[in-house]
Amino acid sequence: MNFHQHVLPNGLQIIGETNPSALSAAVAFWVRTGGRDETPDVLGVSHFLEHMVFKGTQRRNPFQVNRDFSLIGADNNAFTSEENTVFHAAVLPEYLPQLVDVLADIMRPSLREEDFNTEKKVILDEIVRYSVQPQSAAYDRAREFYFRDHPLGNQVLGTTESITALTRDQMQKYFDSRYTAGNIHAIAVGNYDWEAFTKLIEKACGNWPAGQVVRQHRHEVAGPGGQKVVTVPAEKSAQEYVIMMAPGPAADHPLRYASAVLSTIVGDYTGSRLYWALVDPGLADNAGMGSDEYDRAGCQFVSYSCDPENAAECLEIAREVLAEVQKNGITEEELQQAKTKIASREVRAGERTSRRMFTIAKDWAYLNQYRTVDDELRELNLVTRKSISEALERYPIDQMTTTAYGPLEKL
Amino acid sequence: MNFHQHVLPNGLQIIGETNPSALSAAVAFWVRTGGRDETPDVLGVSHFLEHMVFKGTQRRNPFQVNRDFSLIGADNNAFTSEENTVFHAAVLPEYLPQLVDVLADIMRPSLREEDFNTEKKVILDEIVRYSVQPQSAAYDRAREFYFRDHPLGNQVLGTTESITALTRDQMQKYFDSRYTAGNIHAIAVGNYDWEAFTKLIEKACGNWPAGQVVRQHRHEVAGPGGQKVVTVPAEKSAQEYVIMMAPGPAADHPLRYASAVLSTIVGDYTGSRLYWALVDPGLADNAGMGSDEYDRAGCQFVSYSCDPENAAECLEIAREVLAEVQKNGITEEELQQAKTKIASREVRAGERTSRRMFTIAKDWAYLNQYRTVDDELRELNLVTRKSISEALERYPIDQMTTTAYGPLEKL
Repeated sequence: MNFHQHVLPNGLQIIGETNPSALSAAVAFWVRTGGRDETPDVLGVSHFLEHMVFKGTQRRNPFQVNRDFSLIGADNNAFTSEENTVFHAAVLPEYLPQLVDVLADIMRPSLREEDFNTEKKVILDEIVRYSVQPQSAAYDRAREFYFRDHPLGNQVLGTTESITALTRDQMQKYFDSRYTAGNIHAIAVGNYDWEAFTKLIEKACGNWPAGQVVRQHRHEVAGPGGQKVVTVPAEKSAQEYVIMMAPGPAADHPLRYASAVLSTIVGDYTGSRLYWALVDPGLADNAGMGSDEYDRAGCQFVSYSCDPENAAECLEIAREVLAEVQKNGITEEELQQAKTKIASREVRAGERTSRRMFTIAKDWAYLNQYRTVDDELRELNLVTRKSISEALERYPIDQMTTTAYGPLEKL
Repeated sequence: MNFHQHVLPNGLQIIGETNPSALSAAVAFWVRTGGRDETPDVLGVSHFLEHMVFKGTQRRNPFQVNRDFSLIGADNNAFTSEENTVFHAAVLPEYLPQLVDVLADIMRPSLREEDFNTEKKVILDEIVRYSVQPQSAAYDRAREFYFRDHPLGNQVLGTTESITALTRDQMQKYFDSRYTAGNIHAIAVGNYDWEAFTKLIEKACGNWPAGQVVRQHRHEVAGPGGQKVVTVPAEKSAQEYVIMMAPGPAADHPLRYASAVLSTIVGDYTGSRLYWALVDPGLADNAGMGSDEYDRAGCQFVSYSCDPENAAECLEIAREVLAEVQKNGITEEELQQAKTKIASREVRAGERTSRRMFTIAKDWAYLNQYRTVDDELRELNLVTRKSISEALERYPIDQMTTTAYGPLEKL
């Protein structure tokens, strides 16, 4: 494995890891913009724009975009999160030139009025479909309640109102300000020639407008906390979805490994404290703990879903589990077990070219660093019971902001 | 990559592919039994038994089973299909001995009455949860209607009635007759030592009872066909789910590559004929074509889901697409594109240790052959427009048995 980097005169960063024993190559454009970068008048524009990127350019109509990915057997896709919009594809190594040609081309979309109006309907449908899935609806409500007026609480899809009102010109303006070369990096991972790749990117992207972007509201956010539960009655949901949130380490915070180990011990999907307390005895369908790491903000969350009849008992038990850990920490055996679990998952994720690409791109976006799988494992190994105590002190888990979504009127 | 094989005196086959450049190792026990091997009095026993395998042995209670996987960071899981029950896990190479110890141990479960009764409730819940998901319910109804009295139409989960009536002793009898050494193979893939692995398996499984198993009803099955649509009114479903089925190549049939290419051309999730005819214009949420390959039987299916208002128009269009392909075949450009697509997906799947393991295990179960990724690609490359015509002649797609599940009373 070798790491490479290069910056074009317009500010576009190119990074890559070459691995001659891989069988494929994956490429992505990583744009540092997402839901949290949207002002209230353009909520959902990042995600809508992600769709429009596939709707044609000066050189290709939507059919040709699809066809040109198909011709080379590219497995291409894209996603939009709170902070990033990512366009990616994987191919057999011999198709890398064609892949860069089409992937770079679509990054300069025409945003034609007609396509915009057609796609708007698709987005509005997607919002409705998403809103009737209790799990995702519960998550959105919990985030709104936790982040309150901070833009990390924005719904990435936007709302029916915001999307209906959005105009093509607003999207164009957002595109012009956020899709500048200085706010994007190009990455390739797998089996390919680095020099050839940089030349392809330079040719395809060298004329993109320069421009750095500064993100607003980069600070930690704490929800209301306390013991109150906000219930969101949703009679169509059969199960009750309970989500608890508290501050956690940001994406570049040194305590994030301790926090990951803690989450695994408390709430891994199997063999964790919450598993044994809620899932194994059949009280909850599932229960877990995890974390979302953002630019200068982070949050830890605990969630479970269960028969509404069990929701109160589950809440009491979950709070006991969290209070016990907050008070007495974790055991040495739990620590070792969790480290082994995480190491195993990271190593196996590292075997997959596309997954490896996302890890490298994320490290670059948040840490401005390249790190090998071994670097990850080394940092993981440095986690001790002491650093977990530090994490618990800095980011307590016994006063989490709690939202319940489901049939219950009150919890 | 090297392939290895060995047979224990009791008939247990051990196979493996070693890859020194992999970072992990994956192990599985592949039992050749599933829903189609069940008599009407024990419907669902294979899947229920899969759950019971994790509920303890003479050496371990359920807690210890879970703990011993956790201790080594194993990502373990299992699945039951119409023909196979598979138990698998992946670990870092140094944990292979402990992994074989626990994975082999659980393959001889105690089937304790108390655990059986507790788990029965979990299974009954699972049946209910599954039955309210329109997509899976639609699929089950379509299979029942297509396979009629052939056991390939059995629901793998069983029914509320069959599971309620099932006894521990029936499960024990099923276990004794199907989990014999001659009906199981052990497999390891990734970075590990083959000699050491066979010794571990020999030590752990050498005393398993021998015994070959003969599968019943190994023959092709053709549904009613024709142009009639069976509608299954389901008022709780918002969308209409339409599934069309016809005979297709079995798992060892030489035409299965031609059939896979055909499915990709007609119904890949993107860029296929059905995609352009139904999904791109917004008539259907999704549309696809695929195949299920079984032991001496196979079927091709076309499916789409859409707003009930569009269901009739979609059906007409889908039938036109299928009739056109049946009559005039496909183009050379489509052929090349589909081959590239499939090759790309196969190569990338081959990069993942666990996915590679399933492919090798399946080849062994159905073809009694080891095949490299290159072997696969070579066979794929032999597909021509002529062989696709042969597949269409042998397995026509213009008279598919059609089931519609959703709000409509009639389609």
